[in-house]
Amino acid sequence: MTLSKNIAVIGGGSWATAIVKMLSENLETIHWYMRSEYAIEHIKRNDHNPNYLSSVEFKNNQLHLSSDINEIVSAADICIFAIPSAFVYSELESLEVSLENKIIFSAIKGIVPETGLIVGEHFHDHYNIPFENIGVITGPCHAEEVALERLSYLTIACADEEKAQHLATCLNSDYINCKISDDIIGTEYAAMLKNIYAIAAGIAHGLGYGDNFQSVLMSNAIREMKRFIKKVHKMKRNINDSAYLGDLLVTGYSVFSRNRLFGNMLGKGYTVRSAQLEMSMIAEGYYATKSAYKINEDKGARTPILNAVYSILYDNKNPKKVFKKLADKLD
Amino acid sequence: MTLSKNIAVIGGGSWATAIVKMLSENLETIHWYMRSEYAIEHIKRNDHNPNYLSSVEFKNNQLHLSSDINEIVSAADICIFAIPSAFVYSELESLEVSLENKIIFSAIKGIVPETGLIVGEHFHDHYNIPFENIGVITGPCHAEEVALERLSYLTIACADEEKAQHLATCLNSDYINCKISDDIIGTEYAAMLKNIYAIAAGIAHGLGYGDNFQSVLMSNAIREMKRFIKKVHKMKRNINDSAYLGDLLVTGYSVFSRNRLFGNMLGKGYTVRSAQLEMSMIAEGYYATKSAYKINEDKGARTPILNAVYSILYDNKNPKKVFKKLADKLD
Repeated sequence: MTLSKNIAVIGGGSWATAIVKMLSENLETIHWYMRSEYAIEHIKRNDHNPNYLSSVEFKNNQLHLSSDINEIVSAADICIFAIPSAFVYSELESLEVSLENKIIFSAIKGIVPETGLIVGEHFHDHYNIPFENIGVITGPCHAEEVALERLSYLTIACADEEKAQHLATCLNSDYINCKISDDIIGTEYAAMLKNIYAIAAGIAHGLGYGDNFQSVLMSNAIREMKRFIKKVHKMKRNINDSAYLGDLLVTGYSVFSRNRLFGNMLGKGYTVRSAQLEMSMIAEGYYATKSAYKINEDKGARTPILNAVYSILYDNKNPKKVFKKLADKLD
Repeated sequence: MTLSKNIAVIGGGSWATAIVKMLSENLETIHWYMRSEYAIEHIKRNDHNPNYLSSVEFKNNQLHLSSDINEIVSAADICIFAIPSAFVYSELESLEVSLENKIIFSAIKGIVPETGLIVGEHFHDHYNIPFENIGVITGPCHAEEVALERLSYLTIACADEEKAQHLATCLNSDYINCKISDDIIGTEYAAMLKNIYAIAAGIAHGLGYGDNFQSVLMSNAIREMKRFIKKVHKMKRNINDSAYLGDLLVTGYSVFSRNRLFGNMLGKGYTVRSAQLEMSMIAEGYYATKSAYKINEDKGARTPILNAVYSILYDNKNPKKVFKKLADKLD
């Protein structure tokens, strides 16, 4: 079976822009939906996204741009969703075109807040898409480094390996190295959990803990991630593969991570609300923490770091006291 | 059995100074050997080490200082060695006191270049010390953060757990959290290997690879470390424990690591010799690379990162070309 190269990217942020750049190395046309008419006009006139990764130059004859999500989804056989998980639900409400015969890849890290589901499950449950037509694109990958064409590795997960391999081929280039995986559930949960651990790393930093503690926190986090994912979806996986550990590290050690920044502000004494106002956005890990905590109420994995972050974000506990207790549970 | 609290620290560098500080929270007297008469006189007059961690204030009535290694070793029942592995052999040549009835802890990360052995094996083979009297103190721990009393975790490994627990008790404090382990060989190899991976991280950085690549490199490094240590000493261990993964991370991600700095200079185009001259010292990982490579010629673990670093350090291969090939082997 030859799979289609009619690919749409849904989203106008930095990660969506990076994915369009990767695809533009291989495809003649990329269908690209973004909400902002202004950004679309800017790209058409100036060959770059005015808001994100603006150093990346596109060739306009490669792009089919529209602010009409139905037009873009109709044009494509494969849709890559790269919008913040908090907007997935509302963006999809305007979708009239059926997704049932499409292949869906999620490049979204997190939980759909309205349903408490990871994105793959959301598509499966709410749009009747079979799991073999749902895939995940995961890092470790900062979009900014894709813009700079710095060598980066992606993991493309799909229950149907042929589809994963197909998308990998469309994304691979001199600076992109895609690996495939059949662990769609595990990689998606890892991508979600890492944002929670990045908040934890930020809180620790804000509280004045040093690099020694951070390394212990991260080595506990990967063990916690392993326990959590095993409870949710047991299969043979090496948690030290790049899609799990690498993704955790690139986020946990990045000073650019919004989740880490959010945690850092909490550690420095901001309230949750004031940190969110100051950042003028809500970090993905904020929702992920609640969802993961709720999921784990059923699953019962030992998750001291998740519990600590949850109690700070949702129970107004004092970060200093919570981390003092957490520190005793780490090893 | 009540174990002795007559403890000597052998070495005058930053890690030795940090260990003396930790012990001074719990012991009445610490026997402390260092080569430099000048430093000893300075500590006696000014209560701090002039060369390392000079913000740390000691109480002189707690310290038994001497530049005579025989005097200090004689006074103690437990000797903690914290000198660079490159000087272990020569320092010990001046030792006339027998070590046979002592308990030896190594806080040295590396290989004794003259014998190609990890330090525990060196003491066992050359000083007839039974393995149950040999232990290892390992991180993840920057000495600088101990000076700042930032919460840090150590792992104390000894085949005889009671001895590990005893030393842990002598080192624990508000800011030090010791865990014990019976994996003396594995923790020692991990402490050695992490310096090689820190050189690799530095080379990558010097060559212009970004954070995305670093996270992939580190997640490959921990898997390589697991394969290597398993070949050398097979036992049940969780490679994501702090003593292995945490120690790798604190070194690999530290801009202060001398091994990482050394690698960075190689990546930027310095020759091995000129980088060493510029640093006016030889990074531990330089010797560790050769030893680990030789050991692995017998053991046959798959070690693409070690091999890449070896070929740059010892075969004068071009770092850029070597890392381009290495990148294809990572996932």
